Parts: sequence; C-alpha cells; structure tokens
Amino acid sequence: MKTILIIGAGRSASSLIHYLLSKSEKENLHLIIGDLSLALAEKKTNNHPNATAIALDIFDENQRKAAIEKANIVISMLPAHLHIEVAKDCIVYKKHLVTASYVSDAMQELDAAAKENNLIFMNEIGLDPGIDHMSAMKVIDDIKEKGGEMLLFESFCGGLVAPESDTNLWNYKFTWAPRNVVLAGQGGAAKFIQEGTYKYIPYCNLFRRTEFLDVEGYGRFEAYSNRDSLKYRSVYGLDNVLTLYRGTIRRVGFSKAWNMFVQLGMTDDSYVMEDSENMSYREFVNSFLPYHPTDSVEIKTRLILKIDQDDIMWDKLLELDLFNRDKKVGLKNATPAQILEKILSDSWTLQPKDKDMIVMYHKFGYEIHGKKEQIDSKMVCIGDDQTYTAMAKTVGLPVAMATLLILNGKITTPGVQLPIRKEVYEPILKELEEYGVVFKEQSMSYLGYNPDKEFS
Amino acid sequence: MKTILIIGAGRSASSLIHYLLSKSEKENLHLIIGDLSLALAEKKTNNHPNATAIALDIFDENQRKAAIEKANIVISMLPAHLHIEVAKDCIVYKKHLVTASYVSDAMQELDAAAKENNLIFMNEIGLDPGIDHMSAMKVIDDIKEKGGEMLLFESFCGGLVAPESDTNLWNYKFTWAPRNVVLAGQGGAAKFIQEGTYKYIPYCNLFRRTEFLDVEGYGRFEAYSNRDSLKYRSVYGLDNVLTLYRGTIRRVGFSKAWNMFVQLGMTDDSYVMEDSENMSYREFVNSFLPYHPTDSVEIKTRLILKIDQDDIMWDKLLELDLFNRDKKVGLKNATPAQILEKILSDSWTLQPKDKDMIVMYHKFGYEIHGKKEQIDSKMVCIGDDQTYTAMAKTVGLPVAMATLLILNGKITTPGVQLPIRKEVYEPILKELEEYGVVFKEQSMSYLGYNPDKEFS
Repeated sequence: MKTILIIGAGRSASSLIHYLLSKSEKENLHLIIGDLSLALAEKKTNNHPNATAIALDIFDENQRKAAIEKANIVISMLPAHLHIEVAKDCIVYKKHLVTASYVSDAMQELDAAAKENNLIFMNEIGLDPGIDHMSAMKVIDDIKEKGGEMLLFESFCGGLVAPESDTNLWNYKFTWAPRNVVLAGQGGAAKFIQEGTYKYIPYCNLFRRTEFLDVEGYGRFEAYSNRDSLKYRSVYGLDNVLTLYRGTIRRVGFSKAWNMFVQLGMTDDSYVMEDSENMSYREFVNSFLPYHPTDSVEIKTRLILKIDQDDIMWDKLLELDLFNRDKKVGLKNATPAQILEKILSDSWTLQPKDKDMIVMYHKFGYEIHGKKEQIDSKMVCIGDDQTYTAMAKTVGLPVAMATLLILNGKITTPGVQLPIRKEVYEPILKELEEYGVVFKEQSMSYLGYNPDKEFS
Repeated sequence: MKTILIIGAGRSASSLIHYLLSKSEKENLHLIIGDLSLALAEKKTNNHPNATAIALDIFDENQRKAAIEKANIVISMLPAHLHIEVAKDCIVYKKHLVTASYVSDAMQELDAAAKENNLIFMNEIGLDPGIDHMSAMKVIDDIKEKGGEMLLFESFCGGLVAPESDTNLWNYKFTWAPRNVVLAGQGGAAKFIQEGTYKYIPYCNLFRRTEFLDVEGYGRFEAYSNRDSLKYRSVYGLDNVLTLYRGTIRRVGFSKAWNMFVQLGMTDDSYVMEDSENMSYREFVNSFLPYHPTDSVEIKTRLILKIDQDDIMWDKLLELDLFNRDKKVGLKNATPAQILEKILSDSWTLQPKDKDMIVMYHKFGYEIHGKKEQIDSKMVCIGDDQTYTAMAKTVGLPVAMATLLILNGKITTPGVQLPIRKEVYEPILKELEEYGVVFKEQSMSYLGYNPDKEFS
C-alpha cells in the first residue's frame, strides 16, 4: 500500500482526490486527507475505503511531522506561502512533494538537499502555472528537435464562465479567487518583448492594450498583458526569441469596461475608505467623483468616463447596481478594492447550475529550413458542475497524475522541479486528453508579431 | 556676539544668509556657515566680516558636535532625513534649532526633551510648509476671534516660471527639485473633503481633476490635488470644516498635458528600463507603445493619447524633442521617471536670465452672525535672479526671521513647533511684506464648494 498525504482539502482538491481515489484499488493507494477542518476532509473522502480524513493543523509541528512521516509522498494544496515547512519536513523524512504553486525562493533553496536525498519536489504543476508549461514545452521541444529556431512565443490563459452560463453583460463571473481578479495587473508595469523591442505598459493603460484571440467553436476572446512575460524566458530556452508575451484571457469588451474601475480608482487596495461600513454603493461611486451641489452621480460618472447613456459600457455599470442608494457596503475599514469585490460578487458569483471554462492559447513562431512558420495551440475545458469545475480539474488532475508518476518511478529527475521535461509533460498531457483537456494545434505561415495581419 | 550655525549652504540658503548678514551688525550676529564643500560655504560668506565658512561633514560626529556646541542657535538646511542627529545634539548642548522641513516622527519624539530644556525646535518654516501655515493661520485665527465658524479651507501653492521668462508651451520650467515634479502625486490616492464628503482621486485621474484659480494681474492658473489635504486638519483647528483641500498650482493646460506622460507610463519610478543608456528619445517613447511593423512612433502616440496633429497637446510633445532618433538618454539603469526628467531638463531648465515665481492661494469659507462669507488670500512672489530666486526668498527668509526672533526672545514657546502661533506668524508675515511677500485678501459672499459657481 502506498500512502499519499494530501494537505488541504479545499475547492482545488476535489478533482485531484477524485482521480486518486478512482485509481486507488488498481494502484494500491491509501489517501490521507488532512485539513484544518476535519469535516471538510471527511467530505472529500466520500466514504471511500482507501481514504482516511484527519484534522491537520500545519502550524502544529508534531502533528505535521507525524503525518508526513507516515506518507510515501506528500501533496500540498496549501496557499503558496505555507508550503515551506512541509517541504523542509519532506527533506527530513525523505518524502517526495508535489505542489501547484510557483517556486518560492525558500523552496528553490531546498534544491540541493532534495537532490542529495534523491527526492522530487515537483512544483507549478496545476493549470497556470502547470498545463501552460507542459503544453508549451511539448511544442517548443518538438520544433527544436526538428531543427527549428524559435522566434515568437505568446501564451494566454483565462478562467471564464462557460457559454451556457454566460448570462451577464460582462461575459464574466468569478470562477476563482475574486480578490486576485480585482487586483490583477497592479504592483508594477507589464513588461514584454515584441519583435526584439522591450515594451512596458502602465496599469492605467493595461486594460486598453488588449489583443484578440479566436477559438473555433467558442468565438472571439481578448487578452491583456501579464506583468511577468519574461519570467520563463530562460527556463523555456527562449533567450533569443524576438517576441515573448503572456496574457490573461477575457471575453471581448471585458477589459475596456474593467478599465472604468481602474480609471475611477476603485481597484486601489492601498488605503482604507472613511466609514466604509455604512457607505451605500452610490456613495462609494460618488467618492471617486468631483463634488457638485446638484449634478447626479450618474451624469458625473458618464462625464468622467466620457460615455453616453446608450453606450454598452453604461449598461454594464447599471447591471452591477452601482448607483443603488439603499445597498450598503457593510465592510469595516475596507479598501476600494475590497468594496468593489463585494459589489461585483453580488452579480458575478457562480449560480448552483453554472459551469466555468478554462481557455488556454499559445502561439509559437519559428524558422525552419529558411522558412518562417507558426503553430497555434488552443485548449478549452468546461467544468462538469460546481465541484468538478474546469479550474479544479485543470489544477488538480496534473498534480494527481504527477504524484502517481513519481510513485511509480516514471518521473525520476530529483530536485526542485517544474514540469518542463518530457518525462513529465508527455504522459500527463496524453492522460489529460482522457479528461477533456485537449490541445488543438494548427500550423500556419508566420507574419511576425503583426496585430493587423498586414503590412504598409 | 550671538553665533548662528547654518548647516548646508545650498541654493535654498542664499536669501537666508543674505538676510542674516544684512542684520549682523545691528543685531551683533556671527554666522558660521558649514557645508561639506568649504568652497560653497566660503562663496556664501561673501567675505563678510561677520561670517566664517567651515567644512562640515555632519556624519563626522566630533566635527558636528563641536560646531553645534559653539553656536547659540542652529539652522539646519540639510535634506529632511538628515536633521535628526543635529537635533539630538541640540538637546545635548541646549541649542535652539530651526528647519524648513516637515516634522518627522523622530523629530516629534524630541518634543518632551526640547520642552524640558526650554528649547525651541521650529520646523516647517519655509514656503510650503511654512508661509502656507502662517498666512492660513492668520486668517483662520482672525475669523475665529470675530466669532466666525470655519466651513471651508482650500490652499494652493506652486513654484512656476515668472511671466517674463515664460517661453515654452508648457508655461513651466524646473525651479526646484525636478525629480519631485516628475514623481508628484505618486504613492497613493489623493484624499480630501468637499462639502462633508470624503473624495479620493487615483493617480491616473489626478491631473484631469483640476480647478481654476484667478490671480489679478497674473491671469488664470489651475491646481491639482495634493495627497495630504487632511494632514493639518487638527493642527489648524479645522476638525469640523466641510471642505478641506490642498493643491499644487500650475498654468492652465499643464496638468492635462502632463497627464499624457502619466498615461503612457513615463513617470514610473519603480523599475529600470532595459539598456536605458543607449536608448534614443524616440525609442524611449516607443517602449510605451504597441509594436507595429510600419506605423510610426508619432501616429501610435497620437492614437493612444487620442490627439490630433493640430492639437496643442501634440505641439507640447514636439517641443520637448521627444521623437528625436539621435538624442540618446545616456543614463545607466534608469527608471522611466529618471529618463523623463532628463528629457524635460533639456527644455525646462532655467536660463541664466530667467526668473521664477511663487504663487500661493487660500480660500476661507466661514459663517458669522448667521451669514456665510468667504475670504480669498493670494500671494505672488517673483525671483530677483538665479541666486535670490522666489523659491530661495520664500523658503529662506522665514527661517532667518524666525531665527532672529528666537534669539531675541520674541518667540518663546518651547518644544517641537510649527509656525502656527501668533507670536510667530504675526511678526514674520509683517516683515516678509518688506521683501515683496505680500498676501492680498479679498472678501466675497460664500457659495460653498461649487465649481460652476451656480445652482440649478
């Protein structure tokens, strides 16, 4: 019997646990599911004979160490900043570790110790980061093996609402941490390279500099730039590419409308608003507008945003009930961003029957035998329901699959790892297809980065 | 003989030293002027028999303590963060201290010790802070003494170029630290109160939310909001006013044009640009614009800013030579803000014959005997030349006058002080008039904060 300790039984663990339990008899697995909430852990075991729920407080050192010592491998689905103590114990007790989180500096420092003990610490093996690494490296390695030289890599991902549940003017609902959506793009200029030139976009322009993406069967999307486009340049072996760009996918029109909040100052998380608790939604809006003795909040909003009342942008604001005099914010000492999140949650929370959708889109430009070519690779995944969401599947399944591959000796490279090696991405991408996570690749001729698709 | 130690002989010390030397015989003063650069200190003594120049490194503890011990009073014209060691020595050797800087937390902590030793640590007694405190408190105290109740206080100040030297389309030249001009408004939303409602302006809107100010003989100005409008609410005794607003004065049209830099991201000081040293001005601009294989930097700039080629905003950009292919930035590892400062300095540096100008404007709204009234108080000061600039005069003269008043026992309240007491502002404002710093007060009826000056 091989024991897998899963720490954290939150939303993102559903598909992960479901997958491992479904393999548990054949693979002879026993799952120990630990969470601060024993009830939550028990719910996730679903009375399966091969699963045990335990109450686990990772700040209780004895409890944590005892649980880790008993396992053959540890999956940490904790928030990213809480992995490190688990990781250190994994060194002590010589256990492999799998997480879906970005490699922190503290995690990276364990690389030598992990290698010394022949341990695999596989990180960034969820959706984004995770499936993005794997699906990109598969095509990049393939191009290089054929003798091609990479010229361009653009990569986009978005968590959206499925077409059948797309019922509001924003074509958007919160399918993951709403706070991250409200704060998206803050904290510094976006930086990337287009055709050999470094480009920078400040926050106040970020949502006005989108590009379009067409996905057959799903229509048109748009993407705004991520801050970190250059982060994986060396990791992916793309030090010489002319264009490197990463972005976040939304439905067309979302970013232009979101920019209204940015311009008004409603996404600011750096200060607390006076008497936020008793403020009405209307007063919240008025806080960002000039005082006038008689002009309405509505006309002041339209003037500052330069929109008419028959503009769809205006309808998008009205749909959120932003000008309601009676709805109170009800949050003490709240920042504008926290209040905006509250207001948006009224309208953008997934309803019980709603499904979510993940869209990923890569563009690979390269030169081979003197010819310039392009491959576009696209993936759309729709959630089954509110438990097995597209997000839970795409984050959890790669984690689960990697765990089994490590246990079965199919992934063998020790150290602090990302899923960029063939031994990782090949079997996982193949198996993901059985679960509806399928990349469709199209070849086309390459124009360079050329937003208008023509010259002169 | 009373000895005054002046630490720091930079530009802002010119008028200060000139004033004290002119009084030195009558008042029996000896000035010791200490600067890291002995040459600079010597230049400022102007061979006056009552002045001695010394080389003074304030980080040399023995040197610093020895100089302070010999003085009757110390004036520190150092950058604000360097005052504190001087202040601590002033406690030890029981010397009064005068600075033109904001009271830091560290300085405030010396309040009890200063009082215990009956020492006056007078701070914020330059222009802004300084003359703004004094000229505001004079009117506020006067209104309150007559039985009035304050309703509104708005206060504006700006360092500008004098009309006779106003030779560019921006109606602006750098008359003080250029870096502060480029970074103005960054670091958080502006916060103020208008008619009892808290208002917030994000940086991306700051330069679009100006108000107009008319000064007889000088025409129309505009002002954008400072971040700290509420800072002196309690200090001024204005806890119950309905409107409290502080702003920075520019010539009309400056802010709208400056906003172009904000929107493009050129004022960002948070990251270093790739290969900034070898970048041309044109490449700098292009870094903030989308890539296109053939569209010019010019047309991309006009499109993103939504301006036509016959718009004065476009002429303002051309005047700065922003699109020059040959001019190189020449700064290593520079931030956008540092590069913008360099480019602006080419055009906005004061020429040898240029004069600067300070404009200050306060509005006081109040209710007295059931009637609502308003007083506007305005001051314009023009520099004599590039040494005795309006900035040097308005910063240095109040420092010098306060020093003499303390030495002569006319200012007596001990502790860490601001110039908000009658014993300070009355004699200083009166004497400043002899030097051309004259506030003109006008009474008018009060409409409340009403930007359009009418109802309906």
